[in-house]
Amino acid sequence: MKVVVTGGAGMLGRKLGLELLEQGSLTAADGAASEIERVVLFDAVPQPAPLPDDPRLESVTGDIGDAGQVAALIDGSVDSVFHFAAVVSAGAEADFDLGYRVNLDGTRHVLEACRAGGHRPRLVFTSSIAVYGGEDVIDDRTPLTPQTSYGAQKAAGELLLNDYTRKGYLDGRALRLPTIVVRPGKPNLAASTFASSIIRDPLSGQTAICPVKAESHMPILSPRRIVAAFLHAHEMDGDALGHNRAVLLGGISPSVGEMVDALGRVAGGTVAARVDWQPDAMIQRIVDGWPQGIEAARAATLGFDHDATMDEVIQAFIDDELGGRIAA
Amino acid sequence: MKVVVTGGAGMLGRKLGLELLEQGSLTAADGAASEIERVVLFDAVPQPAPLPDDPRLESVTGDIGDAGQVAALIDGSVDSVFHFAAVVSAGAEADFDLGYRVNLDGTRHVLEACRAGGHRPRLVFTSSIAVYGGEDVIDDRTPLTPQTSYGAQKAAGELLLNDYTRKGYLDGRALRLPTIVVRPGKPNLAASTFASSIIRDPLSGQTAICPVKAESHMPILSPRRIVAAFLHAHEMDGDALGHNRAVLLGGISPSVGEMVDALGRVAGGTVAARVDWQPDAMIQRIVDGWPQGIEAARAATLGFDHDATMDEVIQAFIDDELGGRIAA
Repeated sequence: MKVVVTGGAGMLGRKLGLELLEQGSLTAADGAASEIERVVLFDAVPQPAPLPDDPRLESVTGDIGDAGQVAALIDGSVDSVFHFAAVVSAGAEADFDLGYRVNLDGTRHVLEACRAGGHRPRLVFTSSIAVYGGEDVIDDRTPLTPQTSYGAQKAAGELLLNDYTRKGYLDGRALRLPTIVVRPGKPNLAASTFASSIIRDPLSGQTAICPVKAESHMPILSPRRIVAAFLHAHEMDGDALGHNRAVLLGGISPSVGEMVDALGRVAGGTVAARVDWQPDAMIQRIVDGWPQGIEAARAATLGFDHDATMDEVIQAFIDDELGGRIAA
Repeated sequence: MKVVVTGGAGMLGRKLGLELLEQGSLTAADGAASEIERVVLFDAVPQPAPLPDDPRLESVTGDIGDAGQVAALIDGSVDSVFHFAAVVSAGAEADFDLGYRVNLDGTRHVLEACRAGGHRPRLVFTSSIAVYGGEDVIDDRTPLTPQTSYGAQKAAGELLLNDYTRKGYLDGRALRLPTIVVRPGKPNLAASTFASSIIRDPLSGQTAICPVKAESHMPILSPRRIVAAFLHAHEMDGDALGHNRAVLLGGISPSVGEMVDALGRVAGGTVAARVDWQPDAMIQRIVDGWPQGIEAARAATLGFDHDATMDEVIQAFIDDELGGRIAA
């Protein structure tokens, strides 16, 4: 079978694509396990690092906002699509038109391309807890009241995914992701970037600034668990999801102080001491507006796992990204 | 000031447009009452009946799915827009592409045209209780889980309206309408059409078929109250709506039996006896899936009224559409 991963040069898309090659098979539309013959990583930008030498792997650069390119990418030969391509939250706030072009039009192009084949491919769509807004604790019944363009675009994407699924044009599933911790690589412009920096940078010997109070909470999920959740979402029986194909993923919600305490337990006090607490009122205000916790009963019932402890989140990062080595 | 009404040849759009002329003024963006100098009724189809001879009134035929036409219609000179244009529920189910073109793309064209002027016009958007799905009683916290393309498109339109409002591009308000009873004119293809027919047709001396059981309930609102609600939504201070500019309108939810009983009280037993009960399993199944009631506390707090009784709904129809005359 042939699988397309949009946003395939991004952190999650690339990891998922490589995991698919590792795994070697997926459930096809007919419900049977099928060998993966091709994985196409599609993105607006080139891969950030060389890809493994695997004849099943293909990297394509293109524009998700261009309907023709997406139709050519996702033709009738594609069995499954993982749709990660997006302009992130801060980006969609800064460039309103670009956000709608990529996050809404791009998603419609993917939906239309899936529909055009007439063969009901599986589509796993990346949503976000940005679809909520202003709630302290979110659960499966929390109304969607996004407070960002990104959140509005993701919520609209879910509506369309459900509608195309209901009509039988494709077999959609969507996952609402919490903050991803620990992100490898460099900090980005997101207000949440510090939540990864305060773990990642001390582990490689660098000082990291924490701009919020130790009591600040946020729901998090590790890249390892997110990749597993996307595979699980793809493999499960779509009918188990009922009318609403969007699943709020669970996650622990440690305070920032608890995150740094866990860093000390896993990597030692010297590493944890590299966190430099420098309050930033603007970032504090943004973080105070985020949900402080998730009660994701539905995800648990559907068999989605999450990290059990912050220690586990940190250890997964050390194993997956640092080859087990810490700059102690 | 200049006002554009999309769907202006439709029942609600035309009524609203004529009511605006009657009323003569609206609150402008600066918060002050302003004289209405022009009302443009825009629709894909011509007016179904001659318009009053009023120099302020203009009728324009065009395509809401064409971005250029909408941009020309809603330019920087337009102060307020009432956006009724839509492919209705059954139509959007029957023609998937047309539904998205009119109900989603058309709404985006209206939003973009409002944004382009840079003057933050007021926009009142027509949503529907079709944004819900499968709930017996709906209230202000009921999650949006549409089970039709029409409902999905309306829910997506609300998300965009909120986002454009949050960004300061326009001043949006949306009303979620229940079933409109009594619709004047001919029956349409909607499953709900009988709810108007069983009142309208007996009042003009014709037999009407009621395809559902007398115990079947549905929330309804009269055209007179809906027009008043649109005017109220336009006039109110948008800040009173908070982040979510969409308001679930209240309405009574009589059983079909109670509707016919009210017809007997208002118009006499001879008229009510013109209802012919012929059960239709398919329509019964559809109606059974509709909400049986609305608890619209927020609308009440915000000053929206609804009909108090079915008798009042029927009397309003007799006064507004039949000139007070009944075929007794």
